[in-house]
Amino acid sequence: MNYKKVDLSFQSCDAEYKDSQVVLFSAPLDTTTSYRPGTRFAGNAIRVESVGIEWYSVYKDMDLKDYKTSDIGDLDIPMGDVKTSLDIIYETAKSIIKDNKKVMMVGGEHLVTYPVVKAYHEKYKDLKIIHLDAHTDLRDEFLGMKLSHATVIKRCYDLVGDNNIYQFGIRSGDKHEFEFANAGHTYMEKFTIDTLEKIIDEIKDFPVYITIDLDVLDPSVFPGTGTPEPGGISYKELLHATKLFEKLNNIVGADIVELAPKIDPTEVSTAVAAKTLREMILLLHQ
Amino acid sequence: MNYKKVDLSFQSCDAEYKDSQVVLFSAPLDTTTSYRPGTRFAGNAIRVESVGIEWYSVYKDMDLKDYKTSDIGDLDIPMGDVKTSLDIIYETAKSIIKDNKKVMMVGGEHLVTYPVVKAYHEKYKDLKIIHLDAHTDLRDEFLGMKLSHATVIKRCYDLVGDNNIYQFGIRSGDKHEFEFANAGHTYMEKFTIDTLEKIIDEIKDFPVYITIDLDVLDPSVFPGTGTPEPGGISYKELLHATKLFEKLNNIVGADIVELAPKIDPTEVSTAVAAKTLREMILLLHQ
Amino acid sequence: MNYKKVDLSFQSCDAEYKDSQVVLFSAPLDTTTSYRPGTRFAGNAIRVESVGIEWYSVYKDMDLKDYKTSDIGDLDIPMGDVKTSLDIIYETAKSIIKDNKKVMMVGGEHLVTYPVVKAYHEKYKDLKIIHLDAHTDLRDEFLGMKLSHATVIKRCYDLVGDNNIYQFGIRSGDKHEFEFANAGHTYMEKFTIDTLEKIIDEIKDFPVYITIDLDVLDPSVFPGTGTPEPGGISYKELLHATKLFEKLNNIVGADIVELAPKIDPTEVSTAVAAKTLREMILLLHQ
Amino acid sequence: MNYKKVDLSFQSCDAEYKDSQVVLFSAPLDTTTSYRPGTRFAGNAIRVESVGIEWYSVYKDMDLKDYKTSDIGDLDIPMGDVKTSLDIIYETAKSIIKDNKKVMMVGGEHLVTYPVVKAYHEKYKDLKIIHLDAHTDLRDEFLGMKLSHATVIKRCYDLVGDNNIYQFGIRSGDKHEFEFANAGHTYMEKFTIDTLEKIIDEIKDFPVYITIDLDVLDPSVFPGTGTPEPGGISYKELLHATKLFEKLNNIVGADIVELAPKIDPTEVSTAVAAKTLREMILLLHQ
Amino acid sequence: MNYKKVDLSFQSCDAEYKDSQVVLFSAPLDTTTSYRPGTRFAGNAIRVESVGIEWYSVYKDMDLKDYKTSDIGDLDIPMGDVKTSLDIIYETAKSIIKDNKKVMMVGGEHLVTYPVVKAYHEKYKDLKIIHLDAHTDLRDEFLGMKLSHATVIKRCYDLVGDNNIYQFGIRSGDKHEFEFANAGHTYMEKFTIDTLEKIIDEIKDFPVYITIDLDVLDPSVFPGTGTPEPGGISYKELLHATKLFEKLNNIVGADIVELAPKIDPTEVSTAVAAKTLREMILLLHQ
Amino acid sequence: MNYKKVDLSFQSCDAEYKDSQVVLFSAPLDTTTSYRPGTRFAGNAIRVESVGIEWYSVYKDMDLKDYKTSDIGDLDIPMGDVKTSLDIIYETAKSIIKDNKKVMMVGGEHLVTYPVVKAYHEKYKDLKIIHLDAHTDLRDEFLGMKLSHATVIKRCYDLVGDNNIYQFGIRSGDKHEFEFANAGHTYMEKFTIDTLEKIIDEIKDFPVYITIDLDVLDPSVFPGTGTPEPGGISYKELLHATKLFEKLNNIVGADIVELAPKIDPTEVSTAVAAKTLREMILLLHQ
Repeated sequence: MNYKKVDLSFQSCDAEYKDSQVVLFSAPLDTTTSYRPGTRFAGNAIRVESVGIEWYSVYKDMDLKDYKTSDIGDLDIPMGDVKTSLDIIYETAKSIIKDNKKVMMVGGEHLVTYPVVKAYHEKYKDLKIIHLDAHTDLRDEFLGMKLSHATVIKRCYDLVGDNNIYQFGIRSGDKHEFEFANAGHTYMEKFTIDTLEKIIDEIKDFPVYITIDLDVLDPSVFPGTGTPEPGGISYKELLHATKLFEKLNNIVGADIVELAPKIDPTEVSTAVAAKTLREMILLLHQ
Repeated sequence: MNYKKVDLSFQSCDAEYKDSQVVLFSAPLDTTTSYRPGTRFAGNAIRVESVGIEWYSVYKDMDLKDYKTSDIGDLDIPMGDVKTSLDIIYETAKSIIKDNKKVMMVGGEHLVTYPVVKAYHEKYKDLKIIHLDAHTDLRDEFLGMKLSHATVIKRCYDLVGDNNIYQFGIRSGDKHEFEFANAGHTYMEKFTIDTLEKIIDEIKDFPVYITIDLDVLDPSVFPGTGTPEPGGISYKELLHATKLFEKLNNIVGADIVELAPKIDPTEVSTAVAAKTLREMILLLHQ
Repeated sequence: MNYKKVDLSFQSCDAEYKDSQVVLFSAPLDTTTSYRPGTRFAGNAIRVESVGIEWYSVYKDMDLKDYKTSDIGDLDIPMGDVKTSLDIIYETAKSIIKDNKKVMMVGGEHLVTYPVVKAYHEKYKDLKIIHLDAHTDLRDEFLGMKLSHATVIKRCYDLVGDNNIYQFGIRSGDKHEFEFANAGHTYMEKFTIDTLEKIIDEIKDFPVYITIDLDVLDPSVFPGTGTPEPGGISYKELLHATKLFEKLNNIVGADIVELAPKIDPTEVSTAVAAKTLREMILLLHQ
Repeated sequence: MNYKKVDLSFQSCDAEYKDSQVVLFSAPLDTTTSYRPGTRFAGNAIRVESVGIEWYSVYKDMDLKDYKTSDIGDLDIPMGDVKTSLDIIYETAKSIIKDNKKVMMVGGEHLVTYPVVKAYHEKYKDLKIIHLDAHTDLRDEFLGMKLSHATVIKRCYDLVGDNNIYQFGIRSGDKHEFEFANAGHTYMEKFTIDTLEKIIDEIKDFPVYITIDLDVLDPSVFPGTGTPEPGGISYKELLHATKLFEKLNNIVGADIVELAPKIDPTEVSTAVAAKTLREMILLLHQ
Repeated sequence: MNYKKVDLSFQSCDAEYKDSQVVLFSAPLDTTTSYRPGTRFAGNAIRVESVGIEWYSVYKDMDLKDYKTSDIGDLDIPMGDVKTSLDIIYETAKSIIKDNKKVMMVGGEHLVTYPVVKAYHEKYKDLKIIHLDAHTDLRDEFLGMKLSHATVIKRCYDLVGDNNIYQFGIRSGDKHEFEFANAGHTYMEKFTIDTLEKIIDEIKDFPVYITIDLDVLDPSVFPGTGTPEPGGISYKELLHATKLFEKLNNIVGADIVELAPKIDPTEVSTAVAAKTLREMILLLHQ
Repeated sequence: MNYKKVDLSFQSCDAEYKDSQVVLFSAPLDTTTSYRPGTRFAGNAIRVESVGIEWYSVYKDMDLKDYKTSDIGDLDIPMGDVKTSLDIIYETAKSIIKDNKKVMMVGGEHLVTYPVVKAYHEKYKDLKIIHLDAHTDLRDEFLGMKLSHATVIKRCYDLVGDNNIYQFGIRSGDKHEFEFANAGHTYMEKFTIDTLEKIIDEIKDFPVYITIDLDVLDPSVFPGTGTPEPGGISYKELLHATKLFEKLNNIVGADIVELAPKIDPTEVSTAVAAKTLREMILLLHQ
């Protein structure tokens, strides 16, 4: 007899790397988190939780089992060393992109988006970024640091420049961050995502990277995150967004970030993240 | 002096069996639960919690104290023995029906609905079932078993046949379950309950059994359940449903299932279940 | 070298008393709570949590740092001695009013509102009260006591009389409490806050005290309270109310009550309270 | 058919009052608690938990089913009104004593011991009190109140006087409280219970009331209490104490107090209390 | 580039099956659990937790990395179908034994021990069983079932007969279970494990299977289990047992059972189980 | 009237800096934590909790109110920037030492000990360090970093050299760390603290710094820490250590580290830390 080793890949994402179109990895970085840390545990929490979810999405009428996705697990990054951690994420994304596969990343804190965007921007100079979040993340530095969860979209802006970042659901930040957006450097819809459809129509032929900070959701449905901001969107609205994304003709990669599973005693936040991840993986396969 | 023994009947439901029109019992079965078990504790959790709720419902302008309801507690069923457990539930329901009283059951997992429906169907051959749930529960078998929380509505279908089951709020299941519904065997409204009023108008003169899997609610308001499905209805929508039910001329019995009170650290899910139960008991008295 | 003592004032509310326009204090009374106690811990929980919130409100486009607010901490009241506790709250409010500052109180149970209203009513004989709550709080006595969290609005009514109390979001109480309101003694909107704007237009030139029992919110967003009532308003609706309040020309003081931070394992309720407090402080400074 | 009403008596303690030798009641008072309240929920939490415990005690080789114990439930006392609450407890104890039954009380806060001791002292003028606790409870007043959880043993002392109170496991209090004990008014063993056997030998022919504040246990085994004091005794030591108590020839009544079941996420504290209660009931039947 | 699929084998137990001397699997059965279920989640919880533990044991001065252990994950068993589940466990154990490897099983409820003992007993007719537990598990049937967590050691007894089962730490059960042991059918040390060394000396040349119900530990150190029994052994005592086991010359297999990781908010119970598992794996490699 | 600003100094430690002999600060660094982060919240959690503890220690027969201690709060350090954070801690300690006051630090992760030891070692070249911990913390680097919670004692060793570090209670680490200690570079007692008294006798006339990683305690009494290690010392043993420390003639400073208050749902760990802190402050005043 032979037995296979334990396989805790995310639900039905158990293809070998070489056979896959989409590569799932998690980036357990939460070093610069300013309030409640713990997003480092998100990847494996979602994997274990995914045993309990359906592989079929009635929203997309698609089935995870019909697509080749590889889950390569948590990247091996050194806690407390931000620079090395970001380098490892960058190299991994770079390598996946080179192999003509799409990146689906699970954070970690939002800062992990930066090295992936950097890797994509090297390939797609006209990259557009759709950003769902409660927070602007547009500080130029935070607590004296240039690389922080609170500066990540500003760092992406430094790469892609004006008119390429589209922010939705924003409801918290410093005054000057809102002024930066208001000055036209990014497109920003405060509080809601009502203009998402219009924006998608405008940019649908560009290469697009989607970054979802799950704290865009109201804390009622997603309490398990470091800095909950009441007044967010509902899960039905987020689902609606994932449907609208189908109109984009060239989604190059995506991430969901900021699940902190130890702040989630009912595990509902983890369920929300797992089901959002299922929708996003299916989206990348469309 | 004489003192009465402790009475932990559900709020104001302390009539003797013989004097009551509605009989409340709880069925502590959670044997076939595939993800997080624990619904066996629901009945007594609701009883103890009910000390803290009002007996008056401003929604119905009715008062539990004005009606005779008997609470006969948890049925005594053997953990791990599904068949015997279902037999006990069936015999209890049968007996209550024979005594011309109405059954108000608290689950337990959803499978407990089957023996009660079976008992009612023996009396009412034209029985209609209204089913609120996140899940289709239409599998023909699950993990090799015919009797499971995931097959319960299919088993009820085996009894009542086509055009007698009305499903609302459904958002999770296998593809073939949705195909079964789409083929016309059951009426199914996905995601929402917008057509409930129309359906109630159609079936209002039939005998109707109502089964509410509380996970039809969004996990934001009802996290305390085994398989939470984000994207559900709000509590106000569920309240609205309980108002619409008033138009039904012959509600024969009802249940609420799938509260798992140990996955409920704030006890809000238990409060939701207790208040829903108050509304349902008052409904059965109308 | 010199070091300053630890300062855990609520976010940016670190002015000295004499320099402030608004004075924040917390009243750690939860003696008459009939179900789950614990609101006594609210003040300090909010203070510590406030380290993690922004001082800028994008809703009001105002910044806590631009205004002088003094946080004088928990009042020193004796647990279990209701009368003395209320006297201490009354004397504090009286003194702050005399110094021409505004009271911003954090409960504690709702009963703490009574002594503050009493102090304000002595100055403003035409005082109006806006009351957001899940519960009527209109009992004349509760468990034999005249002073209770369940009687507090009735006690305020005894002071201000007919046509001066405006209740919103109410969805729980005894039948006779609703009858009392229906008889015209108070204005009451059940379940929702849709008529708040109209009422504000009517009373905008009167002195107004605002008391917000945070359980007016749905338990999905605010589980951390003693008697959660599903079917409440959303946080966006509460934010909308705080925007409407800007039309009032003479808000004399305000409170938020009934946060029980130990029933809040994700700390989301505390975050909700802290952010509501930020909005209310800014409101008092307008 | 007839069905009996739900019976949630403590495990196997379902005798009618008139037939019982021991009467169990719970006193849900936690009004004067100075730190974390919540002991009001202890009685019913223990009842529901007791479904899961054995009726046989291998420690005593006795079986709850072999003895007649009546559980009359939570006394109906008004939250926030200390005096009335204590009167009700006193009258209940008085009445049970008059009926020649023994009181087994579950707190509530420790103050509930006072009215029971008062009732017993009226019958037994030479009453001795064995007191296990982390705290001295010997203040003469606390926060200005004579009747408080922190003064309860002092109040008992006012009744029974010098040389009648025996305290064990004490490790927290004000300096003057220890001085009071050191002056010989009470017998006090600090930290441990090593001299319990010796004391029992001395007083074994007196009428003895035993009051166990469960926080005498180390918080590792009993975290679910308002003011945990590390450095307490182990559960095995408490069991040993309950064995030593068998040498007392006239135990007239007993209580266990200060379980706060909502501070007990693993429910281990509730299990500890339930099993201690089983041992104490059996002890009263010896 | 190539990336390996996610590997969540228990710490350093990532050998292929064919190369291993010890095979680790988990058996997610908790169907017959009579009180709090949830042991089905133990295996994966331990795997994820094991990221945070040392591979070196200072107790054994051995290192997991120096030995070949294969972790084949959760067995795929159908929730609610006890018989099929036990068959699958039996076949797996049988197959591993045939391949001359040792079984290291993680429960699940204690019933999972029975099929493994059955498989071993077919090979070793003189098999001895060392059993650490709070509970006797010697009922002949429980709730009408012969196969139950409460009957498992009786079922093993039916296989191995008198004088082959050695029970330690026992402190809960029905009276007749203790009488069965007292009649000499099993060796039983109540409460403690003081005679373990003596017994080990007696049976050290026999084939021995070790089954550790982790609730033998005091709930202070291991709260995360369905039926906690205060008065258990300390972790240092359990470590001492694992040292004593080194004297056994022929340990054929072992299990640890009854971790319920969702009743473990601090995750300490899971850490205890993971570290015990490390010691037991190293023991099997000696 | 004038009101003082809120003062949340640790219990009775409200002296001004200039008047104090002992200065308490907290260092909210948890950047290099490799498993569960969250020690950054320890300082303020202890402050708020300390409202509920006695100022009198019966163990020391001393009273916090009789001594001048200043609590200067959380140091203002940038999350994610280890080097700057350590510099700030170093400068603060240096300055306090220069002012002839003693440092009492609350971590944070254990790495915070290093800058304080560095500051003390600059003054006391013959400094001895007593180190209570579950972990060796003797790695030379960890995850590629020289400055880490896992290397902190090795970094201190780099300063003070052979024969100056005394480790107790150690039970986890890599093999080579134990070999480093065994080679005589540090004194190490594994598992227990039995030789502490002997060591104290030897070094009692040297300047001594005491660092207590609270995970030296068994997780049963102190679950609220990032990497719990079962098999630790009891709280009574830790208390005994604090008594033995009284024999040291020149304790120059001390710290307690690694409380993670969000992993502490019963708040018992925070109570343990607060009471240990009370003992340590009193010790520094002797």
